[in-house]
Amino acid sequence: MAFIHDDFLLSSASAKHLYHSFAESEPILDYHNHLPPKDIAEDRQFANLFEIWLEGDHYKWRAMRCNGEPESAVTGSADPFEKFMAYARTVPHTLRNPLYHWTHLELKRYFGIDTLLSPETAKGIWDQTREMLASPEFRARNLMRKFKVRALCTTDDPIDDLRWHRQCRADGYDVGVYPTFRPDKALAVHQPGAWNAWCDKLAEVSGTPVKCFADLLEALSKRHEFFHSVGGRLSDHGLNHCHAHFVEEDLVEEIFQNARNGEAASPEEQDAFASHVMLHVGRLNADKGWTMQFHLGALRNNNSRLAKQVGADVGCDSIGDYLQGVPLSRFLDRLDQENKLPKTVLYNVNPADNYLFGTMAGNFADGSMPGKVQFGSGWWFVDQKEGMEWQINALSNLGLLSRFIGMLTDSRSFMSFPRHEYFRRTLCNLLGRDVESGLIPDDDGLVGEMIRNICFGNVKGFLGLELPGDK
Amino acid sequence: MAFIHDDFLLSSASAKHLYHSFAESEPILDYHNHLPPKDIAEDRQFANLFEIWLEGDHYKWRAMRCNGEPESAVTGSADPFEKFMAYARTVPHTLRNPLYHWTHLELKRYFGIDTLLSPETAKGIWDQTREMLASPEFRARNLMRKFKVRALCTTDDPIDDLRWHRQCRADGYDVGVYPTFRPDKALAVHQPGAWNAWCDKLAEVSGTPVKCFADLLEALSKRHEFFHSVGGRLSDHGLNHCHAHFVEEDLVEEIFQNARNGEAASPEEQDAFASHVMLHVGRLNADKGWTMQFHLGALRNNNSRLAKQVGADVGCDSIGDYLQGVPLSRFLDRLDQENKLPKTVLYNVNPADNYLFGTMAGNFADGSMPGKVQFGSGWWFVDQKEGMEWQINALSNLGLLSRFIGMLTDSRSFMSFPRHEYFRRTLCNLLGRDVESGLIPDDDGLVGEMIRNICFGNVKGFLGLELPGDK
Amino acid sequence: MAFIHDDFLLSSASAKHLYHSFAESEPILDYHNHLPPKDIAEDRQFANLFEIWLEGDHYKWRAMRCNGEPESAVTGSADPFEKFMAYARTVPHTLRNPLYHWTHLELKRYFGIDTLLSPETAKGIWDQTREMLASPEFRARNLMRKFKVRALCTTDDPIDDLRWHRQCRADGYDVGVYPTFRPDKALAVHQPGAWNAWCDKLAEVSGTPVKCFADLLEALSKRHEFFHSVGGRLSDHGLNHCHAHFVEEDLVEEIFQNARNGEAASPEEQDAFASHVMLHVGRLNADKGWTMQFHLGALRNNNSRLAKQVGADVGCDSIGDYLQGVPLSRFLDRLDQENKLPKTVLYNVNPADNYLFGTMAGNFADGSMPGKVQFGSGWWFVDQKEGMEWQINALSNLGLLSRFIGMLTDSRSFMSFPRHEYFRRTLCNLLGRDVESGLIPDDDGLVGEMIRNICFGNVKGFLGLELPGDK
Repeated sequence: MAFIHDDFLLSSASAKHLYHSFAESEPILDYHNHLPPKDIAEDRQFANLFEIWLEGDHYKWRAMRCNGEPESAVTGSADPFEKFMAYARTVPHTLRNPLYHWTHLELKRYFGIDTLLSPETAKGIWDQTREMLASPEFRARNLMRKFKVRALCTTDDPIDDLRWHRQCRADGYDVGVYPTFRPDKALAVHQPGAWNAWCDKLAEVSGTPVKCFADLLEALSKRHEFFHSVGGRLSDHGLNHCHAHFVEEDLVEEIFQNARNGEAASPEEQDAFASHVMLHVGRLNADKGWTMQFHLGALRNNNSRLAKQVGADVGCDSIGDYLQGVPLSRFLDRLDQENKLPKTVLYNVNPADNYLFGTMAGNFADGSMPGKVQFGSGWWFVDQKEGMEWQINALSNLGLLSRFIGMLTDSRSFMSFPRHEYFRRTLCNLLGRDVESGLIPDDDGLVGEMIRNICFGNVKGFLGLELPGDK
Repeated sequence: MAFIHDDFLLSSASAKHLYHSFAESEPILDYHNHLPPKDIAEDRQFANLFEIWLEGDHYKWRAMRCNGEPESAVTGSADPFEKFMAYARTVPHTLRNPLYHWTHLELKRYFGIDTLLSPETAKGIWDQTREMLASPEFRARNLMRKFKVRALCTTDDPIDDLRWHRQCRADGYDVGVYPTFRPDKALAVHQPGAWNAWCDKLAEVSGTPVKCFADLLEALSKRHEFFHSVGGRLSDHGLNHCHAHFVEEDLVEEIFQNARNGEAASPEEQDAFASHVMLHVGRLNADKGWTMQFHLGALRNNNSRLAKQVGADVGCDSIGDYLQGVPLSRFLDRLDQENKLPKTVLYNVNPADNYLFGTMAGNFADGSMPGKVQFGSGWWFVDQKEGMEWQINALSNLGLLSRFIGMLTDSRSFMSFPRHEYFRRTLCNLLGRDVESGLIPDDDGLVGEMIRNICFGNVKGFLGLELPGDK
Repeated sequence: MAFIHDDFLLSSASAKHLYHSFAESEPILDYHNHLPPKDIAEDRQFANLFEIWLEGDHYKWRAMRCNGEPESAVTGSADPFEKFMAYARTVPHTLRNPLYHWTHLELKRYFGIDTLLSPETAKGIWDQTREMLASPEFRARNLMRKFKVRALCTTDDPIDDLRWHRQCRADGYDVGVYPTFRPDKALAVHQPGAWNAWCDKLAEVSGTPVKCFADLLEALSKRHEFFHSVGGRLSDHGLNHCHAHFVEEDLVEEIFQNARNGEAASPEEQDAFASHVMLHVGRLNADKGWTMQFHLGALRNNNSRLAKQVGADVGCDSIGDYLQGVPLSRFLDRLDQENKLPKTVLYNVNPADNYLFGTMAGNFADGSMPGKVQFGSGWWFVDQKEGMEWQINALSNLGLLSRFIGMLTDSRSFMSFPRHEYFRRTLCNLLGRDVESGLIPDDDGLVGEMIRNICFGNVKGFLGLELPGDK
């Protein structure tokens, strides 16, 4: 039997029944990823597996380095095939790592390949896939159609002109492609060089001079409005931990002016400044019915040598142990006090904090809608079978799994859509086991309906995106 | 087969054997809960499911809000039946949450109901239970008898007059009803308004003017003695983390006087003050052979808006990530140095700290008795199947499960006694699995005896309460 | 069937196959333990089970105290047989604790005893084992041969003269016995009394006056060189958390001089001082191709009363919740920036930090060799079935299990070598389950080879120790 078969990950009869009856055929709403909208707008054709698979995937880079592959074969000067061979050497050593599953699931779903990738099989796979990638079916837009993607939301800087999103919209692409407002750079008053350059660019694109803190907020408001006009309905924030150090307006202004004058903010000042920018973004989101996403807890760019050599975000990030509870509570509460807490998704990267996050979400349920504050799906290092099971179990025990808006790929590759399948199989496997051990009723109306909702129905209702097919 | 059946949660033949042979028929000693002693003293009759089930249960409130039910139907102006209907709408959405199990286990054990609660079945269940609740069997005292409760310990303010406990004692009720000394309010010098009012009341009931720190300790000693005379043998403390900031007496006195004069203590001062009050309580406990309970790690009352609208402790609490290790170690060690460490139970709400707690307990085993410092049963958000399994496994791996004093309900409802059954099934399920996989010997003398002890024997011996039937 | 049988811990046919075919017969490289090299050099003969089993094992002491055994029977004045009886009383109460497995596994593997230890069986076991221990097969060196130990690395103070290691080497013992460089005492400028005495001794044995910080580093270099000459290839460091507070040289010198003058360093000063000593040791390790081990996160010697009475390291240690992420990242990065990060093993005692450690290791993979920074095997309180499974799973999901250097005993008893067997059974049990549920391919070439490597091949290649048989 092939390694990836119809019942992969499904260890009970109930699991198989639930997956095939309720999860398999649901469409995808990929509401958070890092795909380049340009590739979609231009309907990119990929020359080979390197381009579609390895080019931007720091998970693979990291594994290759751990396996002893030199940087030249990871991100360096080696040619695409050599890099692919380095990955092929690595794959047999990734046994029990999610890469082993993802790799073979992706080869199967995109190319129908059942052969396990290894140095011996690599050349054949390279040749076969190169040929297939040359066909129209393998252009970016058709791949999204093939996986029933109804909409996807990229991750974008407020200063972005969103030309590619607008182009997708203008030419009537039947998959929704929407931007997400991610203003992380607005917070970086501790790095005044980059921050000032960004503020200047923001001033330019928003037509608002950024000369005082109020100007900055005004400029952000305009860009938020612009993102809204292109279909954006989410903001996203990558933070070590929430900022909830609220100070007087005068002090915020002073921090702003100092940074504008090139003086780096202290950690405490940066915390205060970020708290007030984030409050503003929270209010904008609440006013427009958007959803606010927090990605919390990563410890980034640990390796200075590689950062100098290759750049940021190249696979040298890890999980942090920041204290999350109090600042997260205070920030959400501050917005809630003025009735400006938007729909919120809390993503946690440190599984030790799953129970904290799972209970925090419940603190701000206010009865206005089901599942208003979501404990988001397993993120980054916990976006694998064990990590997803932990998140699903924590959410189940501490909140309402039935109201969960489910999976997103968070990916930089067009070959990652089967992550939804991977999540759905994992979910159904858990529920099937529960049915068979009598922990939940053996009732398709109850369980099957919940599965369908977690796959698609909940997130569709929650986000309020305009889906092309529904126009 | 009914959802709640004889072998619910028991997934192996050994588990079934162990539960039915050793756990099922053991009596209950519910040594920590929040039931109103007045209801017991007056032998309350409940008008309907709302009164006995929803009236005080913030777990249910929280779930209802997450499901989108408005506050009016949760804690507000809606009538009892409407609130029950709101809960009935929520229940099908709690699949995989412990509420789903508890709800149906309680309907079954109290009323023999096998029907799953939903909007469709709610009216029938409401009517049937209302009728049954009107019978004498469903008065508070008979319910306790029905579940073989030998004694229960409520949670009480040192200024309480304990009239209801005394009344239960006086009228010869065959279930022991004992108070627990919970002096949390004595620590709150950072909130001088409430603290002074409380000190004044303490002065009044103890007949001791509270004019200096020594007075405060003296007044607490008198109340502790009073609780002892009514049968109390436990203190309880709900803290973010332990206090172990020991300072000079002069400074404690200064903090006391400032707070008495209405000046709020700083966080550091409050920590110091609380450290010294807690030392005193620890010594009182040690001197009288009491047991000292610590409930550590909750992050409470996160939602200010709801706190203003509804009040404290209404389901807006969560798990914190306070640093527990050092202060917990220092506090216990400080008492131990003077041979005044009482029998102690450490309850942990953040499962990430289970292993820390499990090992901390072992640091202060001094050979004077088995299991002197206990790692307490899964608390609050971890008081469910997964959470209890984690606590049992951590305790097993790090200490002596066989010396565990077991379960308590920590509940505010007379319908929560089946939580003991739920715990026992979970325990036996784990042990049955261990027997079948050869991890422990298949020896009833060894395993069955341990189960009996964890259900009742250990806690009976440990606490030294006077049980009515043993007089 | 005996409790310890051929397939103990192996719950599937695949697990049994993998263990017996690939793991069982691999030799042992016990690269971290606390055995006294004197016992090996002198080829100690043990008089009874107390000497070989209880004499130095604080795991057992801790359990005995938890079970209510008085200190006299634990570490005190009771005679060896009485202490053994106290342990025999405790063992039946350790059900589900790893001691229950270890105890019976050790009795079986050393003495062929299948009887469960209890007060009833204790005398017979004592007598039988005393007789067997008197034979030559039970001398220290033969025990190591019996368990196919190819080499073991003890834990040693830099001031140690390593006479016993040299003696083993000199007399041609066919098992490698190597020292590990553990300079923890060099960091303790906050305890100037002990620190100065240690510095004086270091000066003496290194022939280097220790009058300034540079002298201290020089003296450490000489001892490091000396350890190298005796075959040492590892350093080891027991720290609450990493030190990464880098300051100017002048300040380090000032802290050094103050401590030399008897003035205790503040916590911040100690942190800075330790950071710079550790950088130096890191560079020494990198220059010589050594491996650097970090044991992080323990909260030690919590019980002052027992510390006074019995001493340090007597079983009153626990798991801490120190913040590990940032200092660990900064320290490793600092060495890596100058290309002086040695091969590194990170051991974590708090399982809540497993995912942090598992991802941190991957940050510093630089492609120079496979698995350069290792997430070490479950340590101390997590060195049991559940803890090892967590570590293996975390490593699998976050890094490359196939490159793992595997198990060590970390033990103080010659009866602990079956811990390797225990680990291997646990590993094969996990992998067998994975094979049977289709999570990894059923391919002996892939899975069996990985198992062999984790048992012995990886660590042999990684450490570069000179193994006697390979000369």
